Amino acid sequence: MNKNRIEAFSDGIFAIVITIMVFEIKIPHVDITELNHALLAILPKIMAYVLSFVIIGVYWVSHHNMMHFLESVDRTALWLNNLVLLTVALIPFPTALLGEYPNTTTPVVLYGLLLAAVNFSGTIFWHYSTNNSRLSKKNLNPAFVKRVKIFHSLPIFIYLFAVLMSFFSTYISYFLFIGVPLFFIIPNPLLNRMLSKPFIEN
Amino acid sequence: MNKNRIEAFSDGIFAIVITIMVFEIKIPHVDITELNHALLAILPKIMAYVLSFVIIGVYWVSHHNMMHFLESVDRTALWLNNLVLLTVALIPFPTALLGEYPNTTTPVVLYGLLLAAVNFSGTIFWHYSTNNSRLSKKNLNPAFVKRVKIFHSLPIFIYLFAVLMSFFSTYISYFLFIGVPLFFIIPNPLLNRMLSKPFIEN
Amino acid sequence: MNKNRIEAFSDGIFAIVITIMVFEIKIPHVDITELNHALLAILPKIMAYVLSFVIIGVYWVSHHNMMHFLESVDRTALWLNNLVLLTVALIPFPTALLGEYPNTTTPVVLYGLLLAAVNFSGTIFWHYSTNNSRLSKKNLNPAFVKRVKIFHSLPIFIYLFAVLMSFFSTYISYFLFIGVPLFFIIPNPLLNRMLSKPFIEN
Amino acid sequence: MNKNRIEAFSDGIFAIVITIMVFEIKIPHVDITELNHALLAILPKIMAYVLSFVIIGVYWVSHHNMMHFLESVDRTALWLNNLVLLTVALIPFPTALLGEYPNTTTPVVLYGLLLAAVNFSGTIFWHYSTNNSRLSKKNLNPAFVKRVKIFHSLPIFIYLFAVLMSFFSTYISYFLFIGVPLFFIIPNPLLNRMLSKPFIEN
Repeated sequence: MNKNRIEAFSDGIFAIVITIMVFEIKIPHVDITELNHALLAILPKIMAYVLSFVIIGVYWVSHHNMMHFLESVDRTALWLNNLVLLTVALIPFPTALLGEYPNTTTPVVLYGLLLAAVNFSGTIFWHYSTNNSRLSKKNLNPAFVKRVKIFHSLPIFIYLFAVLMSFFSTYISYFLFIGVPLFFIIPNPLLNRMLSKPFIEN
Repeated sequence: MNKNRIEAFSDGIFAIVITIMVFEIKIPHVDITELNHALLAILPKIMAYVLSFVIIGVYWVSHHNMMHFLESVDRTALWLNNLVLLTVALIPFPTALLGEYPNTTTPVVLYGLLLAAVNFSGTIFWHYSTNNSRLSKKNLNPAFVKRVKIFHSLPIFIYLFAVLMSFFSTYISYFLFIGVPLFFIIPNPLLNRMLSKPFIEN
Repeated sequence: MNKNRIEAFSDGIFAIVITIMVFEIKIPHVDITELNHALLAILPKIMAYVLSFVIIGVYWVSHHNMMHFLESVDRTALWLNNLVLLTVALIPFPTALLGEYPNTTTPVVLYGLLLAAVNFSGTIFWHYSTNNSRLSKKNLNPAFVKRVKIFHSLPIFIYLFAVLMSFFSTYISYFLFIGVPLFFIIPNPLLNRMLSKPFIEN
Repeated sequence: MNKNRIEAFSDGIFAIVITIMVFEIKIPHVDITELNHALLAILPKIMAYVLSFVIIGVYWVSHHNMMHFLESVDRTALWLNNLVLLTVALIPFPTALLGEYPNTTTPVVLYGLLLAAVNFSGTIFWHYSTNNSRLSKKNLNPAFVKRVKIFHSLPIFIYLFAVLMSFFSTYISYFLFIGVPLFFIIPNPLLNRMLSKPFIEN
């Protein structure tokens, strides 16, 4: 199985998931005089959509970054990648739950656990692919490999902490859900250091 | 992040959004004797679909045109592009509202504001990418860069004017919503001048 | 606008339309003892899906064949192609109607008119692109160009005839709807002759 | 018709089917106090989704493997491939049925029959394409061709057996439905032998 095909297949799944979620936002069927009120009630669904759009966008970028440093993909890596895609493809479900029950613990728990699962499977994928330079490019810096592993697995703990916090206040959980992608989007020195020196110069 | 991947990802999202909207047009479940009548009532939804199809088609073309003149894409441009994609991906929602409540102000307002947001984010993307030739191709004509900026930002004002007009007559708003894409589809001297001389000859 | 991008965008739309239609076949929510009976009632929807799958498959193949003989695509051809895509993207709507009201005239009429519209816009696209060799490849045989035009426009008349027949018997219409794609799928001497000698040898 | 286009079109359909199925898992609309209970009731739907995700994943991999050994694709192979895609595109329907009626015979029967149909059409595609080296690459090992045929057609019998077993216990059927993809995912000596020596060395 060729690396480019897996990338194209993964890209397709990312694009479909990120787009189709919007169709979970059903328009209200009410009397015209009630429309504005009914639309306001939909606002949490739109916000849940935007949140998942941004989070999946970050996953898409980091998926590419990981793939970029691989030379090839074997059968095990292919199925570990499929595991990542499965967890990503499930995101619309807790997203719709979040939009419907925004201040309830259960949807926040499911959302946080699923995001943790995406990062967990992504970390396994990266670990397997780079371990002993199994599939990674030549001269890939072991320190860089480790840094990617840390940055990809750290959100697992943050998401699990958000799950825990949801039993006290869902607002703290949302704050954490929003914070993680923002860290990867907004340029910052920590991120720049992480992305530096991927290859060993010799 | 490589420019081609971003183009392919964006293309996927454009293709999905433009196609899936049609599934918002639900068939009626009525007695056969009522069917023709029920189908006539669906006509506004079909027209709303066709309108958004054409508008997204124009966005897709102008997205490619902008990408065509870029040499590369950096992290900031990537996320500005994702912002464009987010606004495009939201279009099915007010489109479905328009189809359901065609002569009501609120859906027209939301539709106009969202279209303005697409053009606004697209303009920011273009401004960022071409400012001081940050990501644009060599010899790109500054006058061309400016003309693209003007033509991409002008619809913002037209859409906002349509939003304003919707409080008086939604027909004026529809006239403007239809007029903007037609300007970019039907060959005209203004458009031809805009697209001329993208590069400085030396 | 580059020809490859338009092909990829069109392919995406064809793939999405052909696949998503299946989600119009809603599963029944009945008591288990009623399930088999309820599933039998869904059979027309499955058959309507299969019919549209095959018809869109034929359109996809002929779309590629036409594109194959073009050298480039200009603004007008791009929008004529978008017109083809718009008509194709609308197919799920009358398909769902056919599945819901299989023996009623109106859905058959709408289905036939839409298919005629696909072939009509495709014929215009081909005519525009090949007229005076505007966009077509060098040495393209004028007799071949004409044959493609005839074979692409003939179904228009057959579909319109099927529309007419639906007022007498929808079975005749279905027979014609099935016959057209089968002609293009099953190898036959007429088709082989049509596809022969696309280029003038010199 | 060029082989790459068919691969890209097929990839698109696989990616769409595998992703969109998740939208069949509708969130419950209940009182918050009932939410956890209502979500537990959805568990069979999520499990049905995961099962079909894995099965379609295996089909996608084997589709690529088969395509990989072909030199070109003719009109007949194109339509045999479309037959494979049609059966794959139908999978969401019995998957949704399985999720709704997990312990009922009919959905298991339909699911098993459809999976058997996917493998059957895939086997025909492979047989047609490789028979007398019609479309396959030079030096392709006849023993390898035969082994692929056996491994691609064996699941037909297992799925049909699962259909039969569903009249006694749907658990046996599920065990078989899960076992087949696992055989192709988990590395094992039988699979490794199958994939060995595709080409004759000379």
